[in-house]
Amino acid sequence: MLRFLTAGDSHGEALLGILEGYPSRIPIDEESINRDLARRQSGYGRSDRMRIAIDRVRIVSGVWKGISTGSPIGLIIENKAGRKGGDLPAQLGSVPRPGHADLAGSLKYGFKDVSPVSERASARETAMRVAIGSLCKLLLEPLSIKLFSHVIQIGNVASPPYERLSAKQRLRVERSPVRCSNIAAEKSMLRRIDLARKRGDSLGGEVETVVLNVPPGLGSYAHYDTRLDARIALAVMSIPSVKAIEIGSGIEESRLPGSQVQDEMFLTRNNSVRRRTNNAGGIEGGVSNGEPVVVRAFVKPLPTIRKSLRSFDMRVLRSSRAPFVRSDTCVVPAVAAIAEAMVAFEIARAVTEKFGGDSLNETKRNFASYLRTGGRGLSS
Amino acid sequence: MLRFLTAGDSHGEALLGILEGYPSRIPIDEESINRDLARRQSGYGRSDRMRIAIDRVRIVSGVWKGISTGSPIGLIIENKAGRKGGDLPAQLGSVPRPGHADLAGSLKYGFKDVSPVSERASARETAMRVAIGSLCKLLLEPLSIKLFSHVIQIGNVASPPYERLSAKQRLRVERSPVRCSNIAAEKSMLRRIDLARKRGDSLGGEVETVVLNVPPGLGSYAHYDTRLDARIALAVMSIPSVKAIEIGSGIEESRLPGSQVQDEMFLTRNNSVRRRTNNAGGIEGGVSNGEPVVVRAFVKPLPTIRKSLRSFDMRVLRSSRAPFVRSDTCVVPAVAAIAEAMVAFEIARAVTEKFGGDSLNETKRNFASYLRTGGRGLSS
Amino acid sequence: MLRFLTAGDSHGEALLGILEGYPSRIPIDEESINRDLARRQSGYGRSDRMRIAIDRVRIVSGVWKGISTGSPIGLIIENKAGRKGGDLPAQLGSVPRPGHADLAGSLKYGFKDVSPVSERASARETAMRVAIGSLCKLLLEPLSIKLFSHVIQIGNVASPPYERLSAKQRLRVERSPVRCSNIAAEKSMLRRIDLARKRGDSLGGEVETVVLNVPPGLGSYAHYDTRLDARIALAVMSIPSVKAIEIGSGIEESRLPGSQVQDEMFLTRNNSVRRRTNNAGGIEGGVSNGEPVVVRAFVKPLPTIRKSLRSFDMRVLRSSRAPFVRSDTCVVPAVAAIAEAMVAFEIARAVTEKFGGDSLNETKRNFASYLRTGGRGLSS
Amino acid sequence: MLRFLTAGDSHGEALLGILEGYPSRIPIDEESINRDLARRQSGYGRSDRMRIAIDRVRIVSGVWKGISTGSPIGLIIENKAGRKGGDLPAQLGSVPRPGHADLAGSLKYGFKDVSPVSERASARETAMRVAIGSLCKLLLEPLSIKLFSHVIQIGNVASPPYERLSAKQRLRVERSPVRCSNIAAEKSMLRRIDLARKRGDSLGGEVETVVLNVPPGLGSYAHYDTRLDARIALAVMSIPSVKAIEIGSGIEESRLPGSQVQDEMFLTRNNSVRRRTNNAGGIEGGVSNGEPVVVRAFVKPLPTIRKSLRSFDMRVLRSSRAPFVRSDTCVVPAVAAIAEAMVAFEIARAVTEKFGGDSLNETKRNFASYLRTGGRGLSS
Repeated sequence: MLRFLTAGDSHGEALLGILEGYPSRIPIDEESINRDLARRQSGYGRSDRMRIAIDRVRIVSGVWKGISTGSPIGLIIENKAGRKGGDLPAQLGSVPRPGHADLAGSLKYGFKDVSPVSERASARETAMRVAIGSLCKLLLEPLSIKLFSHVIQIGNVASPPYERLSAKQRLRVERSPVRCSNIAAEKSMLRRIDLARKRGDSLGGEVETVVLNVPPGLGSYAHYDTRLDARIALAVMSIPSVKAIEIGSGIEESRLPGSQVQDEMFLTRNNSVRRRTNNAGGIEGGVSNGEPVVVRAFVKPLPTIRKSLRSFDMRVLRSSRAPFVRSDTCVVPAVAAIAEAMVAFEIARAVTEKFGGDSLNETKRNFASYLRTGGRGLSS
Repeated sequence: MLRFLTAGDSHGEALLGILEGYPSRIPIDEESINRDLARRQSGYGRSDRMRIAIDRVRIVSGVWKGISTGSPIGLIIENKAGRKGGDLPAQLGSVPRPGHADLAGSLKYGFKDVSPVSERASARETAMRVAIGSLCKLLLEPLSIKLFSHVIQIGNVASPPYERLSAKQRLRVERSPVRCSNIAAEKSMLRRIDLARKRGDSLGGEVETVVLNVPPGLGSYAHYDTRLDARIALAVMSIPSVKAIEIGSGIEESRLPGSQVQDEMFLTRNNSVRRRTNNAGGIEGGVSNGEPVVVRAFVKPLPTIRKSLRSFDMRVLRSSRAPFVRSDTCVVPAVAAIAEAMVAFEIARAVTEKFGGDSLNETKRNFASYLRTGGRGLSS
Repeated sequence: MLRFLTAGDSHGEALLGILEGYPSRIPIDEESINRDLARRQSGYGRSDRMRIAIDRVRIVSGVWKGISTGSPIGLIIENKAGRKGGDLPAQLGSVPRPGHADLAGSLKYGFKDVSPVSERASARETAMRVAIGSLCKLLLEPLSIKLFSHVIQIGNVASPPYERLSAKQRLRVERSPVRCSNIAAEKSMLRRIDLARKRGDSLGGEVETVVLNVPPGLGSYAHYDTRLDARIALAVMSIPSVKAIEIGSGIEESRLPGSQVQDEMFLTRNNSVRRRTNNAGGIEGGVSNGEPVVVRAFVKPLPTIRKSLRSFDMRVLRSSRAPFVRSDTCVVPAVAAIAEAMVAFEIARAVTEKFGGDSLNETKRNFASYLRTGGRGLSS
Repeated sequence: MLRFLTAGDSHGEALLGILEGYPSRIPIDEESINRDLARRQSGYGRSDRMRIAIDRVRIVSGVWKGISTGSPIGLIIENKAGRKGGDLPAQLGSVPRPGHADLAGSLKYGFKDVSPVSERASARETAMRVAIGSLCKLLLEPLSIKLFSHVIQIGNVASPPYERLSAKQRLRVERSPVRCSNIAAEKSMLRRIDLARKRGDSLGGEVETVVLNVPPGLGSYAHYDTRLDARIALAVMSIPSVKAIEIGSGIEESRLPGSQVQDEMFLTRNNSVRRRTNNAGGIEGGVSNGEPVVVRAFVKPLPTIRKSLRSFDMRVLRSSRAPFVRSDTCVVPAVAAIAEAMVAFEIARAVTEKFGGDSLNETKRNFASYLRTGGRGLSS
């Protein structure tokens, strides 16, 4: 069973990650992980810290002669900047910032100082999640399962969803400073970010992750915690700043009559199933149905804004203004990369559960055999 | 650790449920569970089956002289109507219905008949989840943690969220045939449901669950799967027909600048924390912050509509129309009751994790002691 | 992932069981489960209760037209005798019996009465485990994996282990009143049991479970909780009265030099591996190695003996004698059946993890393909 | 919930460990962890590798100003000797060694080379388990729960169990080169080890771990996987070379009549419970009963012996002799340290489950309150 733990504080010496249950014989390319780490760090709207310290992963175990061994994969990402307290302002001290875990975490863990909380509640830990997700993509690629993620909204500027994009527009995303497929939308987004930065304000938005070539049959309606959509909801909602999740066109659907939202099925000549719509977002009854899995996440604007927010001092019990820590103006493009990683993990987990396989060879063999004998559809 | 499994097919003889890790010495009132089962079954827009067969739970273990013993609680809900195939039409056979698990489940489990899939993928199993949630509420009540759930949208008719309701309006909900606080909205909803039923159509909507008196400190940012919002997202997304989840005002927030959405903190005279807004929905950094936990779920309209949908026959591989099974027009009020149950489970699970306690006495003692020494806020 | 929960008190109305993650399309024979329930109940040395109330299972879900559907299997075993307090003597009350969970459970769950504890801590719940294990055997049989269990010691009378038995002796076990392969040993055992019963005393012993045709590669050394021997140790140690576990000849081995205990490997003509010894009990490095898996469990004599044991009254805090509840003289043969069930569960769990498979067809196909391409050994 | 993962290959650059669910505010003393690492490495009978490379842990996260923060604790132990292939002989190659995971692991993970298997199946990974266990002891110490571990047998030389030792003999253990309390036994053991080393042979034995001041009520009979003895059995059986586990006097008990093995209870003047025997090893019905928890593990002799063992070459499918890798003669003293760590983990896990507590303060408060109101015994 694929599972992972991560450790690491925002200004500690390193992040650690351990991925267990990863099949053997998967070619491991450290550079492809580093590319994903860079995708998380890039994005117009990030603060300078991101640009100075480029994350690079070091794999310390579970790989032999360039392929995975089936043993736990041990990962280290060093914190180059800010080691031991770096830019964490001393005055953060005992005044919890609204919108952060500061207050809740201090009460929970018994601190009157915000630092031991914010060090872990920080989104810094998501760098390791991206590395884990990157390994999961290396497992999915040989099965032709591919992930795509992009930004479909920043502030009140929207950009079209994946299914309305041309191949060319899809390619555009990786070159866009805001992971946006649409030039006009991108321009507006950049302008809003500039404006927000000038004002010391922040912007949220919406990201979309699409998984292509997902076989039907991942997840199960058998129990509440085996449903694929439920697991994806946990994985994506767990990303800092994400406050809402949508599968397919779930929100819009809720306002329409049932007659307008069904994804009818058509038989093709070679007896596979085609649909003209994908309102279900690739999941029916908690099980992947063979269509692309579509997951959208809504990202709140970061709470670290120049406007001084009301709070109080936990030590002296007096009203106080929350400290302003210079921060990112907009992290929506980064959340797209993180959401892709978390969805990749859940899809990979469901794949190893369904197809077993201690080695890539075995997983591929079982996967192909399932598709051949009916999983693809119908011809068996 | 609180956990449960359920079993039971839609037209089988009974649903079973087992709840493990439930503290001892909690007074168990079978009738309060039955009331929750009735709330799930009621609601304008349900089909006749609901009215005929009133669900009643039977507790077969884990209770002694009216109180829980700490042993697994065994539950049975008999399927009074429809036993063994009852109203399941024979023609359902081999044509998967769009919007159901039919196709995905048949491919996954290797059937060319839809019945073995639809028997479990059916929302029938949620009756047992409601019973489980009801037991969880019996654990939360002695800690003063209360849940409220209502309908805030059916089709395109909206009704105000909890925080804008008067006490009187809140009380109204339990008497409303659509679990709606607002008379005008209710009227519109009933009309839409009548119209939809006449047309053989269906309606979705949106429900809101609010948890009151949640102590700060449930859940943790320590790992992705310990975050309270993430766990709630899984639990609620796992309800059949739910396709999107929102914590607090997560969707609206994503479009606003950060300066407009923060929940500032104010110190009261007796040194507790007050906020004037709750955009965060009671959860910051994955941890409850002492404000009400607010969860919204978007419900798609049921796919069983009179309009005949295109599909195909899995046996003969020929195009076919999906069978129309007479069904509910609108299940949104029922989903409110189910969402309440699932949220109750996750809150109860987080409570037993944080406060331990093998008996209610112990949990209460630990809970009170936490609040006294700082968990309430700040006075320690 | 295969998992189960059980519920049910010793004198309650029924035991419930739910098995989740069980593949579809496995032919389910209720009678074969009942036969295993009978094996658990039989055995010279049981009290009369066992003979009066023959356990029979009722499957209420997860089966359709005689085959499993992939949905949770719901099981009910009714408590025919003793319902609601039956032969539980009133005087059991507040005096904990040494050797039972009475004291520890009362303190843990906050009772000053032993009943709510002993109702669940009783070995009665193992009936449901046997039913679960029986279902697991139905999954293993189509893969040719077979289990054998017998008694190799009662009191100080020993009987040879599996590997030294002839085929005929192995067959003998099912007909023996003490599940013993050896006529002479059986005679001695029966005499000791008679003597112990006359004295109001009890006898423990040792059982052995052997799993045949286990493919190499179940379990993993990757993490402590994925090792097959560790998981089996948990599963078997969890049986009431079992106080020690041995894999292969683990105890004897610990006293011998390394040069005398290794299982050397020999290549056969058709390139499979043969060993002349199996000291490792089929597991090397936490992974099955293709040899029979051999698990031994040591069973303590039941603590319910006529000799009155010293204890105290929890209510009045005064010394007291523990009540004598008429009970079984020897449960070792029953433990053999239960150990078989628990080992079957762990082997089945490891099989579904390695080979995946939502349907028996898929599991079989993946299993066969693994054996063909190397898993059998070496010829790929 | 306390959980951990480890990563790291025998000759890789480092071992990683992540411990999640560890309460905050526990003083963390890196040196006490290093002392436990040294205990694992010492012991007469280890090879030279152990002496050259002294393990030292580096904590990279989860600690702030010397106390734990409640965030995951990240640990690194560098592999000073042998980095990247060091003393792993090239000829190990494709001939699996009997008694190792070599064959089973190669078949499972699809290798025809033993190295990727033996790198992880090696006992090297237990260094990180000892570090994890050491952190668990830091959590248990403030609750007065203490662990003791020693060697009670090497080869066929036995030494008395804990309960028969004087305080002075107990102290002796830490100074003994074989962790043995008895001078005469120690002498014999050293002689056997010398002899075995000379012969290129190896020796196994038996270790005992005792946990003192365990409160009654840890673990539960409610479900098979919540029993404390079952969990300890998994944890200890998962240690490489351990092939049998005994709780209390489980093996001897199995041969005695019930009248001779019960631990009768006596009320003391201040109304606590005393027993004169502890055959149950501190666990009745799967729950700790307040007496010392006693766990014994049987250790097989290492399979790396000079005598050349028969095996075959997986590449060319020809009979071959297994390579002889110079190795430890006797690891029994090291297993004592590892068993102590694994038992510490399981006890700490059960403590955090029962008493909750996100901070040491909270856990201690809840713990004390339980003892006061009945958990100690009886005076409430």
